[in-house]
Amino acid sequence: MIKAGIIGATGYAGAELVRLLTHHREVELIWYGSRSYCNEKFGEIYRNLFEIVEDVCMDDNLEELAEKADVIFTATPQGYLASVLHDEILSKTKIIDLSADYRIKDVAVYEKWYGISHKSPQYIEEAVYGLCEINREDVKMTRLVANPGCYTTCSILSAYPLVKEGIIDPSTLIIDAKSGTSGAGRGAKTQNLYCEVNENIKAYGVTNHRHTPEIEEQLGLAAGREIVINFTPHLVPMNRGILVTAYASAVKRADGSLPSEKEIRAVYDAYYGKETFVRVLPEGIYPETRWVEGSNYVDLNVKIDERTGRIIMMGALDNLVKGAAGQAVQNMNLMFGFSETEGLQMAPLFP
Amino acid sequence: MIKAGIIGATGYAGAELVRLLTHHREVELIWYGSRSYCNEKFGEIYRNLFEIVEDVCMDDNLEELAEKADVIFTATPQGYLASVLHDEILSKTKIIDLSADYRIKDVAVYEKWYGISHKSPQYIEEAVYGLCEINREDVKMTRLVANPGCYTTCSILSAYPLVKEGIIDPSTLIIDAKSGTSGAGRGAKTQNLYCEVNENIKAYGVTNHRHTPEIEEQLGLAAGREIVINFTPHLVPMNRGILVTAYASAVKRADGSLPSEKEIRAVYDAYYGKETFVRVLPEGIYPETRWVEGSNYVDLNVKIDERTGRIIMMGALDNLVKGAAGQAVQNMNLMFGFSETEGLQMAPLFP
Amino acid sequence: MIKAGIIGATGYAGAELVRLLTHHREVELIWYGSRSYCNEKFGEIYRNLFEIVEDVCMDDNLEELAEKADVIFTATPQGYLASVLHDEILSKTKIIDLSADYRIKDVAVYEKWYGISHKSPQYIEEAVYGLCEINREDVKMTRLVANPGCYTTCSILSAYPLVKEGIIDPSTLIIDAKSGTSGAGRGAKTQNLYCEVNENIKAYGVTNHRHTPEIEEQLGLAAGREIVINFTPHLVPMNRGILVTAYASAVKRADGSLPSEKEIRAVYDAYYGKETFVRVLPEGIYPETRWVEGSNYVDLNVKIDERTGRIIMMGALDNLVKGAAGQAVQNMNLMFGFSETEGLQMAPLFP
Amino acid sequence: MIKAGIIGATGYAGAELVRLLTHHREVELIWYGSRSYCNEKFGEIYRNLFEIVEDVCMDDNLEELAEKADVIFTATPQGYLASVLHDEILSKTKIIDLSADYRIKDVAVYEKWYGISHKSPQYIEEAVYGLCEINREDVKMTRLVANPGCYTTCSILSAYPLVKEGIIDPSTLIIDAKSGTSGAGRGAKTQNLYCEVNENIKAYGVTNHRHTPEIEEQLGLAAGREIVINFTPHLVPMNRGILVTAYASAVKRADGSLPSEKEIRAVYDAYYGKETFVRVLPEGIYPETRWVEGSNYVDLNVKIDERTGRIIMMGALDNLVKGAAGQAVQNMNLMFGFSETEGLQMAPLFP
Repeated sequence: MIKAGIIGATGYAGAELVRLLTHHREVELIWYGSRSYCNEKFGEIYRNLFEIVEDVCMDDNLEELAEKADVIFTATPQGYLASVLHDEILSKTKIIDLSADYRIKDVAVYEKWYGISHKSPQYIEEAVYGLCEINREDVKMTRLVANPGCYTTCSILSAYPLVKEGIIDPSTLIIDAKSGTSGAGRGAKTQNLYCEVNENIKAYGVTNHRHTPEIEEQLGLAAGREIVINFTPHLVPMNRGILVTAYASAVKRADGSLPSEKEIRAVYDAYYGKETFVRVLPEGIYPETRWVEGSNYVDLNVKIDERTGRIIMMGALDNLVKGAAGQAVQNMNLMFGFSETEGLQMAPLFP
Repeated sequence: MIKAGIIGATGYAGAELVRLLTHHREVELIWYGSRSYCNEKFGEIYRNLFEIVEDVCMDDNLEELAEKADVIFTATPQGYLASVLHDEILSKTKIIDLSADYRIKDVAVYEKWYGISHKSPQYIEEAVYGLCEINREDVKMTRLVANPGCYTTCSILSAYPLVKEGIIDPSTLIIDAKSGTSGAGRGAKTQNLYCEVNENIKAYGVTNHRHTPEIEEQLGLAAGREIVINFTPHLVPMNRGILVTAYASAVKRADGSLPSEKEIRAVYDAYYGKETFVRVLPEGIYPETRWVEGSNYVDLNVKIDERTGRIIMMGALDNLVKGAAGQAVQNMNLMFGFSETEGLQMAPLFP
Repeated sequence: MIKAGIIGATGYAGAELVRLLTHHREVELIWYGSRSYCNEKFGEIYRNLFEIVEDVCMDDNLEELAEKADVIFTATPQGYLASVLHDEILSKTKIIDLSADYRIKDVAVYEKWYGISHKSPQYIEEAVYGLCEINREDVKMTRLVANPGCYTTCSILSAYPLVKEGIIDPSTLIIDAKSGTSGAGRGAKTQNLYCEVNENIKAYGVTNHRHTPEIEEQLGLAAGREIVINFTPHLVPMNRGILVTAYASAVKRADGSLPSEKEIRAVYDAYYGKETFVRVLPEGIYPETRWVEGSNYVDLNVKIDERTGRIIMMGALDNLVKGAAGQAVQNMNLMFGFSETEGLQMAPLFP
Repeated sequence: MIKAGIIGATGYAGAELVRLLTHHREVELIWYGSRSYCNEKFGEIYRNLFEIVEDVCMDDNLEELAEKADVIFTATPQGYLASVLHDEILSKTKIIDLSADYRIKDVAVYEKWYGISHKSPQYIEEAVYGLCEINREDVKMTRLVANPGCYTTCSILSAYPLVKEGIIDPSTLIIDAKSGTSGAGRGAKTQNLYCEVNENIKAYGVTNHRHTPEIEEQLGLAAGREIVINFTPHLVPMNRGILVTAYASAVKRADGSLPSEKEIRAVYDAYYGKETFVRVLPEGIYPETRWVEGSNYVDLNVKIDERTGRIIMMGALDNLVKGAAGQAVQNMNLMFGFSETEGLQMAPLFP
């Protein structure tokens, strides 16, 4: 039984961490950090946990928390952790950061896309990009995990096998992503009001969404060279879920022919066949967000278009679970040697 | 470890039973009965359970199932179980019936409201009305549970303490209920299409909904006399959830005064204070379906209107869990001496 | 062609007024008042009107506007108009107030329920309660209309004929109302975020919603005596629409029998048969908000429950049209002698 | 005043035609054809038009209707019109076909993608593809209009100026489209039930949706050569609206540089500046379906990504209006010399 604390427990991702850790048999949650709701009972803010969580929210005191907790989750705004992290903290506790602070290895890229200067770049190299299915062994050894973004988790897992195997040309990659509204957070903004989101779909962050360089860096590592891609997120009138539809040209064989669907599917099976949380769907069945809601699963599928020579890669996950809190728990399980699925066994909720 | 089977596993309530039993540590699910999807893999119909449930759907063979299973759940249309049940089956297995066949003790009332003749009224007396919080001890001893309806569970739990204690006049009781659309089932009907339900609210079954006599009978037992009530269900554009808003005149004290809110709240605390799945909310905080979604909880609250002398009782639950499959599992736990909360510990999902 | 101005044009009700007046053949809209968006183009705030309305928002200057406009609509917070209105303004222009300031004749009741002191009670008597179907002749003669609330319009029109004719006992009246979220306005509040409203239904303002005294006063006038009622509003996950389900005991005839459904329906036909905007539905067909969306129609129906002796009255309207802006335009049409339906002929939008 | 009839009046597109024509000052609607609801009152099936349309549905008798009507709208399944059309009908009346029967000039392409043989290919050449903004003059002269598909209208209008001007390479074109659920029609299918669509997004028809060849043919005409594209539709939990996000590589200038955003925007302004129903949004403001709901408007915008050299084109429309019934009315207006906007002036409804 380890002790865990959360800084930023009353955002949607933080509250999802609370929900998951409440079910986790190896963790005692000892700190519900929330600047906004300090001294209020957590279960009166998130009433789904009424009578289940009896604790009171605490301030964001990373130093005090480091004394008490074996692991700290930071579900905080960009720049927060980078501005307060120091060696002593890291010597006492492990950290799983749900913000973007340590996700991007190239600090100049981080600073350009996020528009802030990085206050502790010295920890970037040490931080492990916590996409469990890809960096599992590194996660087990680290004390600092950069938990991936929601869009990036879905995008990378969808395209990774084909990029890694050189089956698609990554310079042709276009990712069209769609997200439920919980991804926008719980801040009171007019644009996220019910009547503004309901009965509507829109693109946003066109050509400049911050998850772009994260995807480029990770898939670039897989490709063995720098890549630039198009990434366009859309806001969908639903609470949870991300769907990625990605397009790239297949690399032709020496004889000028296209790879077969069977071959392509075999690659996915090889990469993900043993992964509990990645489900490669049968041919012709495409991912839908409803089938993963509330769970840590990612559903994937792929199809080649013989006419255009492009491969369409599709993925679906729950942005608050595999796209945030669930993956953070999965990382914790790896870091502490627990069963990787502990606390994450719940089946998706439908309807 | 007991063996369980489901007849009618591919309706929404049946599939929710599968989801819950998949997590249950004392149960092995051995039979996924489905006339419509016979021989198809369950996890390819309900893809939330893809790779989680590998079994194939079987036909509805109650007799064969009785040989193999310790408990059978029937999530079937009205009249099915009554038409096939016989002594031999009940001598071999226990049954939890999610249909209305054995809920109503007065067979004439059943036949009038359901418009069908009851094929095995001899089992009605034996059947225990499985509202666990009220009939817990009887449930433990029976082999046949009539699992309550979704609206009725919410309505009865909301009003029961005040009826039982004589604090409201049950002849003045009016129940205005609102349900998510999963309550309408998975049948392909025009009226339940997305575009017909979305952006809409309507009443239906006005004065003649079938849950009316079930509420009347159960609350009549609590009141110690026959009662008639008004019950009006409404269809709400959401997947899950039932909200009940009930109104009744307070019985005045001998001196003509009204009971105080404090007194009334004390009654709820007395009845439900030790119940895991019933949460009496703090004063001024009213039940909302989002706080119970995906869970077995019922949230309740009550308020007295000094101006009109009426008490407003409110309750919220998830129609597929506490309103159907969750309560069925809770009944099974009682019948087999398992922990009452086994398989039902999951916190509600929000947002 | 008259000139009209709006104070508070960038709330949902104000913007709906703009949409309706844009289609109105007798009105030129000359003033889009908005403190929040002063000097911004209206069509860039409400992009549905992009390239349709080219004007820029102005400050809230009632005095200047009174000089220029034949009619002013105030879609402003409670207390605003009462605090700025004076004789000179009313001598120059007509006012249709969408706030509650002049709706309630008893100033003490207003001050109690709204918790503010009324700054110009001298205009209350003069103000006509602008429920067109009931006060049509008075509206034609006045220079100050108190445009009714959304819940109240639906509630009063649903119950009025039976109260007026003495067919129900108004002291037994219970109104359970359900509203789409646009009724909560466009203010950026956490509780109105998409993820908080979606997949949820809740009661609010239980026993103390401000539309209660407005309904009581108007139905009390119809009854010829003071009445108190229960009114409970609910928030529904949809943009537009109000549904009212009202319950009251039928007054028995001298011989102790109940009025027949046919009789009751005949009363509705007598009251509303000639009303364009009130549609009494056929027997057994109940109001649904989808059938009136975007229009000025109110759909009504009624059913008697022989078992309980109660009558259930149901009504549906679009809260932004007949519940606010549409009724305001209808009042304007009456005040200026235009065709009552001018600008309001659009059929409801479905799906 | 002309006379119009509809074959297929009780599908969603047919009913939208009824709604629009009810408001049209030059048209009398004399025939509400509906095989499913023959002899029922139209206003009792689509209750939004209750008391507005008093007519009764008729059978699908194209020959009788040709005698009586100046124009016939066919909102019928693929293959219907092609199987019944003959010279005599076309000599008596004009036809606007909302199905795909005469949209595709290459009959082999039609037969391959639709999987049916074309029963009257002799009319294909004569039929004008009724995308009003592009083929306006031809529409004015024809007696047979092939009304474009919903996805195709949005896709073509979004990409047309850049294809026509040679600014993008059409062989790189990828169209990722998202549609509300009314596009799936009113048929009672499990997959379109509320609980299956709500809280979900999915791709469908991946690489083989029937609107693909229609887009390819029309944009091929603009490009001056045959093209193949990727087109992927998605189902979104909302009633109305289509959003298109299209990607293509910019053709570099002779000096290897990319066209500027200003240049690109100027092309859109040149093509659409005078079009009432096409609104090119300001820089940085992207189309959203909510801003066009219920109206005939298409909102467009475009952005160049300097990093990847691709141009992102975006468009939004209401699939039932500009994507179906509204465009059909616009075509009728052109064919009969009415004002092009007659019956289509309504502003979009928001929220």
